[in-house]
Amino acid sequence: MDFNLELFLSQLQQKKDYVESCLDKILTAQDVFPPLIHQAMRYAVFNGGKRLRPIMVLESGKLAGCEGEALVNLACALEMIHSYSLVHDDLPAMDNDDLRRGKPTCHKVFGEANAILAGDALLTGAFQLLARTSGLPGVNAQRLLQVIDEIAGAAGSEGMIGGQVIDLNVEYQNEEHSLEKLHSLKTGALFTASLRSGAILGGMDANGLTALTDYARHFGLAFQITDDILDVDGDQSLLGKPVGSDEKNLKMTYTTCFGLDGAREMARQEVEGCLQSLNGFGSEADFLRSLAEYLLYRTY
Amino acid sequence: MDFNLELFLSQLQQKKDYVESCLDKILTAQDVFPPLIHQAMRYAVFNGGKRLRPIMVLESGKLAGCEGEALVNLACALEMIHSYSLVHDDLPAMDNDDLRRGKPTCHKVFGEANAILAGDALLTGAFQLLARTSGLPGVNAQRLLQVIDEIAGAAGSEGMIGGQVIDLNVEYQNEEHSLEKLHSLKTGALFTASLRSGAILGGMDANGLTALTDYARHFGLAFQITDDILDVDGDQSLLGKPVGSDEKNLKMTYTTCFGLDGAREMARQEVEGCLQSLNGFGSEADFLRSLAEYLLYRTY
Repeated sequence: MDFNLELFLSQLQQKKDYVESCLDKILTAQDVFPPLIHQAMRYAVFNGGKRLRPIMVLESGKLAGCEGEALVNLACALEMIHSYSLVHDDLPAMDNDDLRRGKPTCHKVFGEANAILAGDALLTGAFQLLARTSGLPGVNAQRLLQVIDEIAGAAGSEGMIGGQVIDLNVEYQNEEHSLEKLHSLKTGALFTASLRSGAILGGMDANGLTALTDYARHFGLAFQITDDILDVDGDQSLLGKPVGSDEKNLKMTYTTCFGLDGAREMARQEVEGCLQSLNGFGSEADFLRSLAEYLLYRTY
Repeated sequence: MDFNLELFLSQLQQKKDYVESCLDKILTAQDVFPPLIHQAMRYAVFNGGKRLRPIMVLESGKLAGCEGEALVNLACALEMIHSYSLVHDDLPAMDNDDLRRGKPTCHKVFGEANAILAGDALLTGAFQLLARTSGLPGVNAQRLLQVIDEIAGAAGSEGMIGGQVIDLNVEYQNEEHSLEKLHSLKTGALFTASLRSGAILGGMDANGLTALTDYARHFGLAFQITDDILDVDGDQSLLGKPVGSDEKNLKMTYTTCFGLDGAREMARQEVEGCLQSLNGFGSEADFLRSLAEYLLYRTY
């Protein structure tokens, strides 16, 4: 399969638009009492995100023959959890960011207290959405509970939150707990849950799940490495944030550790790893293949 | 049934000790990586709390013939959610409290960022615990999903979080959205979920669930009214916090709205409402009856 960037970008945009229309239907309307929290939740979700996680849910679910409203709920729940994590990460007590993708962060618009609560409410709402998937046609309740376990584990203290703890507390930043450990928790765990949850709901076999888990691990690394590269040589107007912030904040990154060329080579290897892990799938996995290759061309 | 305060307090202590031993087993050990978050989570949970919500789960579950490890998981999940809400409420951006029950609040000990993350992790961990209840003997997966929906709804933007939004944003504090609305969301919703969830898992019929929901509503109000009364005439050393803080913060409370005697009379009426709502149950509901009557004697 040859990678066609232009074709891929139009497919990606289509899938992104679909996910956003689903999120719009699923999130509580902003006039529901108390409106302030529902406005803040929507602001946090409609933030110009790439929607990679929900798209992964839809693509990997499809591989297991899972589709329809149940899969859409899983996809939206993952994006709600991702959105909550960004709101909390941006808080003054954490990364203290005023802008995200060129727009004021949630706490700059709604105040710190409401931003904390909007994050809490998105996390809580994601689990309610997952639980409510129960009544939909073709949903196996046991598998759905396994999905909730999987997602909560990935988002929790030994997953994404654990990664943020490592990132924020200098005592964890040493050789032993390397960059890879940090990112495998902070972003990798939720990518893995995104790739596995739809497949679990669809009843994919163990080999298929292992392949998707491998893909997720390589994808997470490639994503983080290319993120670090963009912070060095990206275009500020496309990124919606200043470049060079990692260097300014003395952050340990793939480019500071391995140089720009070293990091680029590592990214290529991880993308190759993504492709190899999908060898057991046919053309139905082509979009996931392109999604990995695209990382080498991303501009934001 | 005559209320015997001394007997009740010894039963309450026994149940509280049991709940704490279960929480100790269920919460992630504090040396699991990254230890900081697991220490903060445990600090937040072992905070001298009254354990009312998990005790309610155990008592109401018993009424529906539900017992064992599954019920314990529900009880602990509710307490984890309650604990997370206290950690976030205490944050500088919210109530900015340095002490809770005489001990430094979570953010005073672990820093603001770790406290936010510990709250997030307790909330996430509660849902994981609920999902993992799936494999236990006698657990009906559909009912368990209904329980997760119930708890998430009670904790979310139209429940507990909504109540906190009303409490923190002055634009919601007017006649229309009265004190009762505030407290029915901020504390009532989680009491209701505590009383209903064990019963739902046990398969209680609709009449029984309605009775428990009525009990929860009256209990929540009686709890809040007696809380406001303690803030006026309580003993600071028993409360673990200064009295008179509501008046100092110009908070609208039951005593500022209805006077001390008016509030006392309202509390008695709500406790009476609790007892009446349990009329359809026999002696197996005696502890819940005593728990309501106790509110008129609480000292902290």
